[in-house]
Amino acid sequence: MVYDVIIIGSGPAGLAAAIYAQRAELNCIVIEKNVISGGQIINTYEVDNYPGTPGISGFDLSTKFREHCEKLNTKFITGEVTDFRLDNEIKVITLDDGNEYRSKTVVIATGGQPRRLGVEGEDKFSGLGVSYCATCDGAFFKNKTVAVVGGGDVAVEDAIFLSRLCEKVYIIHRRDQFRAAKSSVNKLMALENVTILWDSVVEKINGTETVESLDIKNVKTGEISNVEVAGVFIAVGYIPNSHIFNKIVATDEYGYIIAGENCETNVPGVFAAGDIRTKELRQIITAASDGANAITAVEKYLNNN
Amino acid sequence: MVYDVIIIGSGPAGLAAAIYAQRAELNCIVIEKNVISGGQIINTYEVDNYPGTPGISGFDLSTKFREHCEKLNTKFITGEVTDFRLDNEIKVITLDDGNEYRSKTVVIATGGQPRRLGVEGEDKFSGLGVSYCATCDGAFFKNKTVAVVGGGDVAVEDAIFLSRLCEKVYIIHRRDQFRAAKSSVNKLMALENVTILWDSVVEKINGTETVESLDIKNVKTGEISNVEVAGVFIAVGYIPNSHIFNKIVATDEYGYIIAGENCETNVPGVFAAGDIRTKELRQIITAASDGANAITAVEKYLNNN
Repeated sequence: MVYDVIIIGSGPAGLAAAIYAQRAELNCIVIEKNVISGGQIINTYEVDNYPGTPGISGFDLSTKFREHCEKLNTKFITGEVTDFRLDNEIKVITLDDGNEYRSKTVVIATGGQPRRLGVEGEDKFSGLGVSYCATCDGAFFKNKTVAVVGGGDVAVEDAIFLSRLCEKVYIIHRRDQFRAAKSSVNKLMALENVTILWDSVVEKINGTETVESLDIKNVKTGEISNVEVAGVFIAVGYIPNSHIFNKIVATDEYGYIIAGENCETNVPGVFAAGDIRTKELRQIITAASDGANAITAVEKYLNNN
Repeated sequence: MVYDVIIIGSGPAGLAAAIYAQRAELNCIVIEKNVISGGQIINTYEVDNYPGTPGISGFDLSTKFREHCEKLNTKFITGEVTDFRLDNEIKVITLDDGNEYRSKTVVIATGGQPRRLGVEGEDKFSGLGVSYCATCDGAFFKNKTVAVVGGGDVAVEDAIFLSRLCEKVYIIHRRDQFRAAKSSVNKLMALENVTILWDSVVEKINGTETVESLDIKNVKTGEISNVEVAGVFIAVGYIPNSHIFNKIVATDEYGYIIAGENCETNVPGVFAAGDIRTKELRQIITAASDGANAITAVEKYLNNN
């Protein structure tokens, strides 16, 4: 049996791709690592920026996506991809149970995860004051004091963004200058409610129910201080789950699969959708859009091959 | 008063942009021509491909989008844009009531509409067998006989797409050859359940509750014939609502505003989101994604200017 398309991953990108593939009557399967679909959003306490469903829990939103797929009779297979052959006309995907699946096209929608600090309190307060996405969660901290950790473009842009919403914003950076674009840094520097803590790292995230303060260490003096915050936004990078595919599919320096809006990769018949691909904005809505675009590209590919 | 961003249009792209702008605490207004938001989807009988809300009516989905915006206190202004000044740092938008609005950035999300045939029955059966989007509505015609009208890429791709779902597909084209890509045409020609009616135009769409048949005229012989179909997909082009802006914002040969995934146009501080911009796939999900991307680009612009 040769499928029209195998979708790998069942976050918003993979599930949206499945919806479009099923409605197009493509012969399709979705391979997912966990029996629960949704990817990163499963554990998100509240999603307020997927248009049409304000204030929904991540679990409920992913359930809605999954139910949409099931209503369209999408076939899900649980397993981890351990091997693959993508450079032939017929692609072969091997799972950890040894089963092989053949397909004319493959959509890689394996997502990724934010890089963690690895400090005490980070796991405990994840979604309870610890966030990895200012665009997603910033609005929950209106008129409160928060911290941003990091020194790259995302950290600096997050701090500027949060300065409009929050009473006060600390930005905590391990070095004594930012890697971010000069123009953003100038903008940040001019903001009255932003305090920059140079040469500093978070040692511990404290709280009872939710985040209450951070223990911060100055890496030059060794001094430990404590700052009271209601939230901490960790912006120290993102790890795309591309490691298994990057032997053949081209990735950028950060590991993202190089693909534009139409999700085409350098390998004919192989498409990348959602957080895994090179893009400006990683959000549920942009991932779902990728799913639709990827299947449209799959259909064009099938029409021409 | 100078706004951070003025969003023109309240279809899925404009409303999604408003959601992102409000959550980012940008000082924002949405200008809409009608008091009812939703754009093209308001009149869509059933939307089955916006992930998470299977089988919803277009009116209900647009209401959900609107309510999401209202929950975030979005400010809507009803009026038609009659004049504008976009090439200065401060943009000025003039409405038909003479009021002027000033803003640092503008998101054009004015959408467009499919080109109509202008034949009897077309309006009457719109959403009741007459469709302008095979990707959106094809699945509702599973195992039925349908017709596609047109001869370009979209028409040919629609016919291929529908051939997988439908019992039989007629493609009705006024000329004796297709303008579509050769590879797609070859694919189409090989399909057993597709019949091509060359040199033919639809004269009338017949039915009682829903579409039942088409009167078709051969433009060379003048002969009129009747074919029984449950649905007709009209793919004779799309009219983007860019005519007022194209004095200054660059458009392509079809009138779409030239902008990539980040929605940037040739005019600094002016962005185009949704069906109005050059893109592969015009769907609710891709329009909503544009709204998010456009506001992210607005924020970057505001950070750097």
